Amino acid sequence: MSKKYSIGVDFGTESGRAVLVEVETGQEVASSVYIYQNGVIDEKLPVPGKNIQRPQVSGQTQAALPPLEPDWALQDPDDYLHTFQRTIPAVLKEAKVEPVDVIGIGIDFTACTMLPVKADGMPLCVLPRYRSNPHAWVKLWKHHAAQPEADRINETARRMNQKWLERYGNKISSEWFFSKALQILSEAPEIYAAADRLIEAADWVIWQLTGVETRNSCTAGYKALWSKREGFPPEAYFAALDPRLEHVVSEKMSHQITPIGGRAGGLTARAAKWTGLKPGTAVAIANVDAHVAVPAATVTETGRMVMIMGTSICHMVLSEAEHLVPGICGYVEDGIIPGLFGYEAGQSCVGDHFAWFVENCVPAAYEHEAQERHLDLHSLLEEKATALKPGESGLLALDWWNGNRSVLVDANLTGLLLGATLATKPEEIYRALIEATAFGTRVIVESFERHGVPVNEFVACGGLPEKNHLLMQIYADVTGREIKVAASKQTPALGSAMFGAVAAGKAVGGYETIFEAAKQMARLKEETFIPVPENKAVYDQLYAEYLRLHDYFGRGENNIMKTLKRLKAEVLTS
Amino acid sequence: MSKKYSIGVDFGTESGRAVLVEVETGQEVASSVYIYQNGVIDEKLPVPGKNIQRPQVSGQTQAALPPLEPDWALQDPDDYLHTFQRTIPAVLKEAKVEPVDVIGIGIDFTACTMLPVKADGMPLCVLPRYRSNPHAWVKLWKHHAAQPEADRINETARRMNQKWLERYGNKISSEWFFSKALQILSEAPEIYAAADRLIEAADWVIWQLTGVETRNSCTAGYKALWSKREGFPPEAYFAALDPRLEHVVSEKMSHQITPIGGRAGGLTARAAKWTGLKPGTAVAIANVDAHVAVPAATVTETGRMVMIMGTSICHMVLSEAEHLVPGICGYVEDGIIPGLFGYEAGQSCVGDHFAWFVENCVPAAYEHEAQERHLDLHSLLEEKATALKPGESGLLALDWWNGNRSVLVDANLTGLLLGATLATKPEEIYRALIEATAFGTRVIVESFERHGVPVNEFVACGGLPEKNHLLMQIYADVTGREIKVAASKQTPALGSAMFGAVAAGKAVGGYETIFEAAKQMARLKEETFIPVPENKAVYDQLYAEYLRLHDYFGRGENNIMKTLKRLKAEVLTS
Repeated sequence: MSKKYSIGVDFGTESGRAVLVEVETGQEVASSVYIYQNGVIDEKLPVPGKNIQRPQVSGQTQAALPPLEPDWALQDPDDYLHTFQRTIPAVLKEAKVEPVDVIGIGIDFTACTMLPVKADGMPLCVLPRYRSNPHAWVKLWKHHAAQPEADRINETARRMNQKWLERYGNKISSEWFFSKALQILSEAPEIYAAADRLIEAADWVIWQLTGVETRNSCTAGYKALWSKREGFPPEAYFAALDPRLEHVVSEKMSHQITPIGGRAGGLTARAAKWTGLKPGTAVAIANVDAHVAVPAATVTETGRMVMIMGTSICHMVLSEAEHLVPGICGYVEDGIIPGLFGYEAGQSCVGDHFAWFVENCVPAAYEHEAQERHLDLHSLLEEKATALKPGESGLLALDWWNGNRSVLVDANLTGLLLGATLATKPEEIYRALIEATAFGTRVIVESFERHGVPVNEFVACGGLPEKNHLLMQIYADVTGREIKVAASKQTPALGSAMFGAVAAGKAVGGYETIFEAAKQMARLKEETFIPVPENKAVYDQLYAEYLRLHDYFGRGENNIMKTLKRLKAEVLTS
Repeated sequence: MSKKYSIGVDFGTESGRAVLVEVETGQEVASSVYIYQNGVIDEKLPVPGKNIQRPQVSGQTQAALPPLEPDWALQDPDDYLHTFQRTIPAVLKEAKVEPVDVIGIGIDFTACTMLPVKADGMPLCVLPRYRSNPHAWVKLWKHHAAQPEADRINETARRMNQKWLERYGNKISSEWFFSKALQILSEAPEIYAAADRLIEAADWVIWQLTGVETRNSCTAGYKALWSKREGFPPEAYFAALDPRLEHVVSEKMSHQITPIGGRAGGLTARAAKWTGLKPGTAVAIANVDAHVAVPAATVTETGRMVMIMGTSICHMVLSEAEHLVPGICGYVEDGIIPGLFGYEAGQSCVGDHFAWFVENCVPAAYEHEAQERHLDLHSLLEEKATALKPGESGLLALDWWNGNRSVLVDANLTGLLLGATLATKPEEIYRALIEATAFGTRVIVESFERHGVPVNEFVACGGLPEKNHLLMQIYADVTGREIKVAASKQTPALGSAMFGAVAAGKAVGGYETIFEAAKQMARLKEETFIPVPENKAVYDQLYAEYLRLHDYFGRGENNIMKTLKRLKAEVLTS
C-alpha cells in the first residue's frame, strides 16, 4: 500500500495554513500559507472590487460607508474558502502526492469567530442586500465591541443564579458566542432576523467542505456555554436577556453537538474541485487552534499541561473528573480529548509584553549594538539577561500590562514594576518581565493543583519556545517543573491532520482514535528544560513576594489600578 | 565714588567658579571657572608630576599605590588654591575692574568636605611623609566609605539617648564630619594623630585667604552636630565612640563657631598676590553652596521655601522657632540667615532620575526623531509629555530610585511604577516620574507645615527650572503653591558675593546685613509658575494614592523593597 497522508488546515488571524502529513509517521511533508486578502477588517469594510468573486456593496459606494467603531474586528468568509483553494492544491503539488493517497482532512480555527448565514450556509455578508452592514460579516475572535452584551450576560446569569457560570470562572468574555450574537440582535435586529443560522466559522468551513452542518463540542463548550451533561442554558435565561433570543439555540443553532474526534462527512464534489482532492475524502469535526495542538504536543492524558506560548499563553490540561477551578477560562467534557475534561486557562500578555518593552523601552545604544552584531533586539536582551542570576536585578513585576485573564479574571488590572534603582539596566527589566509572566503561570498551575487537577510537567509549543531559551529555563525554574517542547512548529495544523486521520479511520490507513494517532504522529524535541534547584530556591522567595503583591493589588485591598483607570477615563472625557 | 564690587567664589564638585558682582545692583559683571586639575579622586591618588607645586609621593612610585576602595572620593586642596589664583584675576581682567573697587570676598563650598591639616594650616597630603596615605587627602562630600562609622555614631547616640540626634531626623549621614573623622581615626590612626586640626574645606580656604582659622556656623550646625544653644555633643559621647576621640573638638576643632554673615578677616599679602586684590580686602565667614543660595534667591524671611533643583533637590526654609520635623536633614540656628532657624530637607533623585530614564528607557525611534528635529531627548520627551493631561497616563510612580532621603530617611527603598499597559508610551512614564518627584516634594512640604514650619510659596534655582518648564508647572500643580524662579543662574556665587559685601560693611560701600544685601542684590525672574486649579484637583486624587503606596511600602507594612535588596546581595555573594 502506498503511503497515506492527511491534511490539517489551521485558520489563524491573518492567514490560513495547510500542512500535508504522512499518517504513519507524522512527518510534515509540505505546507502552504494563504494570507487573507481582506485580513482583519477593523477600519472599514472591504473596498469595491477588492473581492472579484462577490457582488459589491449594494446601493452605495464603499467610501460612503462609515468607519468601523473601535474594538471591531471582522473577517471575510471568502478568505477561508480561498485558503482551501490555494493551499491544498499547493501542498499536493509540492509533495507530489496523489489525491487518492490523502485519506482525511481536519481543520482548526480561531474561536469564537462566528458569522450569520442563510439556511443553505450562504453568509449574509455576501448577499448584496446585507453586504454594507458590518453585522453581516464574520466577527473575529478579537472583536471586542460586545462588552456591554457580555456585561448583560454576566449580570443576568448572576441574578438568575445560573449554575453554568461556575464552569467559566464566573465570567463570560465579550469574545464569546452569545456576546457576539446578542450584539447583532441589539444593534442590527434585521441581520439577526435574516440569519437562519448563527455559526462558528470553524463549523461553517466544515459545512462548506462536506455540505453537512455540524457543531463541534469544543467551541460549543468553551465559547457557547454548552455542556455535555446540561446542554445550553435554559430558554428562560435567553428570554431574560432579550425575548427575541429565547429560542436562539433551536432556531439558529443546534442542540446536536458532535464530539471532536468524529467524522463530519465526506468532501463534496464542489469542495473536491476547490482542493484537488477526491470527493468523499473524510473530513473531521471542526476544532479550535489551541485545543487541537494538545494531542499534537503528545498529550492525550492527565497531568501534563500544554502551554501554547506566543503573544499570550494558553494553558490546557486534562482531567478525568469535573473540578471548579477559580479563574480558568472554562472546562469542557470531550472539549480537547474525547472522554476527558479539558481545562483551559490563559495569560493575556506574554509575547506581547516583551514586544511592548522592545518597542517602547530599549535605548538607542542597544539598538546600535544589536545592529552591529546582526542580532535582533530580543536576542540581544536575552543574551544580556541570561548573564544575570535569579534575584540579581532586585526587580519584581506584576504581569498585568493587559489585565489578568487567569485567577483574578480582571481586565482592569495594570502592570507594576518594583525595585528599580539608578543602576537598573534594560536587560534587568526585560528579565523581570519574563519572570513575572512565569510567576503568573505558577499561580495558574497552583490553582489547578489546589482544586484537584494535577500538573506534573509541561509541554510547550508556539513561537516562544523556539525563540527564547532563557524564558523557557525561567519557566522551569519558577514552576519547578520540567518543560518539554513539541517537535512540530505547526502543532495546530498537525493536530488537525491527526484528527483528519482519525476521521478517515483504520480501514483506509488512518487511526481508530486520537490516542493512537497521537502515539504515532506526535513527538517531542530531545531538548527539555529542567529546573535548576538553586534557581528554584531563589524564585520561591520571589514568588512569595509576587503573590503578596498579586493579592494586595488584585483582590481588592488596594484598588489603585482601577482608580487610576477611572481617573484616566474621566480626564480624557472632561 | 566709583562702583563697588564683591567677588563670590563657589567651590563645586568638579570646578570652582568666581563671579564679580556689582554691589549696588547685584549685576553679575564677569565670571570665570577653574576645572580642578585632579577633579574627584576616586580611583587612585594623583600621579607624580601632575602637580608641579608639591613634592611627589615619597619613597615609592605612584604606580605602586593601591587603588582606592569603592565609595571613596577625595580631592586635592591645591585645586582650591588654584581656583583663587586663576579665576579672580580672570574676572578682574574681564570686567576691567580695579582691585581697589573690590570691597569683599565670600566663598561657599560643598559640605561636608573636610581635611586633616597641621597647626599652620598645611594639609597633611602635601607633606611628603603622608602624601601616599589616602586619609591625608581631602574627603569630598560624596566620599561614602564611612558608613560603618556613621552606623556606630547612630547606634552609640541612640544607646546613650543623645538628644541632639533629633535635630537631624534621628540619623547621621556617612557624609558628615564625625563619620569621616572617625574613619580616619579607625583606619589611619597615624594620620589622625598627625593632624593638629580637622577642618571643613570651606573654613580652610578662608584660613588660606585671611591667615585666620575660623569655623562657620553653617557646616558646624548641619554637618558637625553643633548647635548654638547646646554646642557639640558631650565628650563622654565622643569617648564612647573611641577613647582617642574624647577631646576631638578642643584638640582638633574649635568650640568657637562664628555665625555666617560675619567677617573672617582681611586678605593676607600672600593671598592678595594670588588674587590680584588689595591686602586687607574683607573676607566673609565661609558658607555652604546650597545654603548661601537662599538669600541669593531673595529669601531672608520665613514662609518661602527655596528649592535648589538639579540632580537632587535641596529644600530650605526659615523659621523663627525650633521645631522637630521628621525626616529633615537638619536644622540650625543662624545656619542660613542670622537670627533664624534654617531647615533643610532633600530628595535624592530628581534630575538623576530623568537622566537614568533617558539613558536606559527611551527607544531608538525617539532618538531619531530628536535628531531630525535638532532637539535633545529631554526636550522631545518634555514636549510629548506636555501634551498629556494630569491623570491621562494612568501611571503612578514612587520616586525612590535612589532611596528616600526625606521623611522616611531610608536608602534601601527602591523605585516603583504602577499602571502600565500595552499602550503605555515613554513620555507617559517620563511624566509619571516627574510627577512622582513632585509628590515627594509635597510630602516634605506637608511634613514641614504639620510640624509648625509654614511653606507658602517656592523660589526655585539650580539647573532644572531653566531646562524643564513642564516639570515646574507640575510641581506648582501638585503642591498647589506658586513657584518663583531666582534670576541668577549662579545663585551660590551670587550669595557668596552678597556675604562678601556684608563682610565689607556699609562704610566702604557694602551692606550692614544680609537682609539689606538681599534686598539690593538678589532678584527673581518675571516668569512664575502658578497652580492650575483643575490640574491640582486631579493631582490631589493621585497624591492620595501616592501617599497610600508611600506608607505601605515605606513604613514597614510591606518590606518587599528591602527583601529584594537583601536577596540581590545574597545571590551576588553566593
